Amino acid sequence: RINEQRLWDTLMEMGEIGGTEKGGCNRLAGTDLDKQARDLFVSWCEACGCTVEVDKIGNIFARRPGTNNDLPAVGTGSHLDTQPTGGKFDGVFGVLSGVEVLRTLHENKIETPTAMEFSVWTNEEGSRFQPAMQGSGTYVGRFELEAELNKTDVNGIRLGDELERIGYLGDMELGSRHMGAFFEAHIEQGPILEDEKKAIGIVRLGQGIRWYNIEVVGRPSHSGTTPMHLRKDAMLAASAIVTEMNNIAHRHENGLGTVGYMDVWPNSRNTIPGKVTFSADLRNPRPDVLLAMHEELAAFCEKIAKEHELDVNLDHFWYFAPVEFNSSDDVKAATEKLGYSHMDIYAGAGHDACYMADLVPTGMIFTPCLKGISHNEAEYSSPEECAAGANVLLHTMLEASDR
Amino acid sequence: RINEQRLWDTLMEMGEIGGTEKGGCNRLAGTDLDKQARDLFVSWCEACGCTVEVDKIGNIFARRPGTNNDLPAVGTGSHLDTQPTGGKFDGVFGVLSGVEVLRTLHENKIETPTAMEFSVWTNEEGSRFQPAMQGSGTYVGRFELEAELNKTDVNGIRLGDELERIGYLGDMELGSRHMGAFFEAHIEQGPILEDEKKAIGIVRLGQGIRWYNIEVVGRPSHSGTTPMHLRKDAMLAASAIVTEMNNIAHRHENGLGTVGYMDVWPNSRNTIPGKVTFSADLRNPRPDVLLAMHEELAAFCEKIAKEHELDVNLDHFWYFAPVEFNSSDDVKAATEKLGYSHMDIYAGAGHDACYMADLVPTGMIFTPCLKGISHNEAEYSSPEECAAGANVLLHTMLEASDR
Ligand SMILES: NC(=O)NCCC(=O)O
Ligand SMILES: NC(=O)NCCC(=O)O
Repeated sequence: RINEQRLWDTLMEMGEIGGTEKGGCNRLAGTDLDKQARDLFVSWCEACGCTVEVDKIGNIFARRPGTNNDLPAVGTGSHLDTQPTGGKFDGVFGVLSGVEVLRTLHENKIETPTAMEFSVWTNEEGSRFQPAMQGSGTYVGRFELEAELNKTDVNGIRLGDELERIGYLGDMELGSRHMGAFFEAHIEQGPILEDEKKAIGIVRLGQGIRWYNIEVVGRPSHSGTTPMHLRKDAMLAASAIVTEMNNIAHRHENGLGTVGYMDVWPNSRNTIPGKVTFSADLRNPRPDVLLAMHEELAAFCEKIAKEHELDVNLDHFWYFAPVEFNSSDDVKAATEKLGYSHMDIYAGAGHDACYMADLVPTGMIFTPCLKGISHNEAEYSSPEECAAGANVLLHTMLEASDR
Repeated sequence: RINEQRLWDTLMEMGEIGGTEKGGCNRLAGTDLDKQARDLFVSWCEACGCTVEVDKIGNIFARRPGTNNDLPAVGTGSHLDTQPTGGKFDGVFGVLSGVEVLRTLHENKIETPTAMEFSVWTNEEGSRFQPAMQGSGTYVGRFELEAELNKTDVNGIRLGDELERIGYLGDMELGSRHMGAFFEAHIEQGPILEDEKKAIGIVRLGQGIRWYNIEVVGRPSHSGTTPMHLRKDAMLAASAIVTEMNNIAHRHENGLGTVGYMDVWPNSRNTIPGKVTFSADLRNPRPDVLLAMHEELAAFCEKIAKEHELDVNLDHFWYFAPVEFNSSDDVKAATEKLGYSHMDIYAGAGHDACYMADLVPTGMIFTPCLKGISHNEAEYSSPEECAAGANVLLHTMLEASDR
């Protein structure tokens, strides 16, 4: 069994890097704080004898050798970047459960048949740079390396430059680890495990996601002298689309629709907005339903452009198809062996494991979090809840290594 | 008659300060560019022998003595600050029509019975600092000096500090000019004069304005894991209010409703917005109708707060009551004397003259602008249109001085 107190202390120590007044974390990808968090992870892994390598998109891999290093390694990992108003657990819990597994093996001098690999993936959040799971997606070959390194944040700063600046632009080839299985522990980020009073969620599926940038181009003019019928009000048209995102979500079972980001130009209170740029995020566990939602959004944008006589540019830049996890039964077996209550569940958020499933048999372990709140400074999981997840991760990995 | 070419050259020279690629102007109140524009105005007035004084809110007064300086002066003036994507004419045309009147008197060595005063009012636009017409409103005693100097922009910078920094925090007492009449020339900023093919608008009324800051406080949470029915989505609630602003405007004759400014927090695409702050601008020429519009907005905000189970804080920080101009007939007489076509009109925008009307008999002269477009870099008035307005200003002022 892992050491509950040590895992908790590790989470709290990491949470101080970018820690906010309200007890959350603001540690965006590629920032100085991201560097500090990565450095701490590397130092912890090296203290347990791991060798550490960094790939060309900044993903970090720490390796603990096995007794037979010709066998493919068993991997785990998640991310250390957070939302601007994120919590201490999202992603971090998965990475530090890995560190706790490593420490448990190390202090008990446990030799495993295969090597064990502990990873940190670049920009999983997709907040500062898009899309989300950028590091794992690029590692598995879903995205083109140069294009991703050239992605910029809202201030025009390149991801590649930031990785270089913080010392995490490595030279290891993408997709080159010799891995045979991958497991990721993560807080659920939703309310189901708590409601159902289950310690562990066996994640069967990661739901589909479609991300958009929408640009409404109207005509700036005076709020006091432009008659209503002569306006091309980009804000008014954008608001109609925000409302429709909500309607689309409600029209479909398990549908979700969100506008989280908006930028208004020129953003002056007595000038009718000339341009409004905003994000759209549609999700559904079923690909056919998600496609229908997409088509409704596209049709609505066209309709609004016609009605308001302005331009609506819908840039659908990321489609993440629903993913089935084919090593869920390994997670279930370890959970039952340890005697934890559990249930099958699907992931609402995207995770690095979703992309790793392209390359190797993959499974995910969910743990409850308070009221299901995530991407919020109030995000919380108790020490016991965290320990249960890390124990399941330890035993799932041991089992997979022994096969 | 004034010199059309000289007026035009003056407008173009001033337009270079903060000039934009698209031929507009970005010269926000209290910036270095505002200082440059003020310095140029002062140098032009001094070159014509004026003495210049600055009051405690940064308004500039240039005085050309008359033959009897015991008589109250005849004043004119407007503003040099612009919107972030403003034009070269809004405000500037009024100030430079004054300069052109001054130069015409000066080069023709015309002695006027009363002194003539040429003024520039601080932050008329209300874009960087609120409310609009801050300099004239404070001068006439509508606002309290200290409170206005303490107003901050979105970056927390104080107006008082900016005025001091650019050298325009004067020590002249507010309201202390010995003035007997005030006239302001301004582009219409709307499409009516152009549509009706009239050279001059005799402004009978300035319509009422109500300005608000609205804050919607929801709960940030994950866009992929938070079921629709558990959300407190500040963006969705804000969009409903934006849509309702439009509905309110359409429900009332001559009603206008605009949301020009919006700020989203944390503004991350996979976090449901926790707080959205935005402006609201309601206008109507009739005070009773504007009050009804206000009540509808307030009721709707309450309704949305209940329905979405979140907080909606409506801060109604500025009410500008409709103003009648009681010296409109002087403007009309001068216009008819000069033989320009004209019509009565009301001002959709607020103007410094609206506040000056508190203290002295006041009139406004409107000139057409292309397609009625204003608060837009494409704002345009032709040299002839500008000249007509400046000629009417000259003769209105001469007539008023002679009475
Ligand atoms: N786990 C997590 O919050 N991932 C961010 C990507 C997403 O929006 O689902
Ligand atoms: N003239 C003008 O554009 N004034 C700005 C104040 C307003 O919003 O009406």
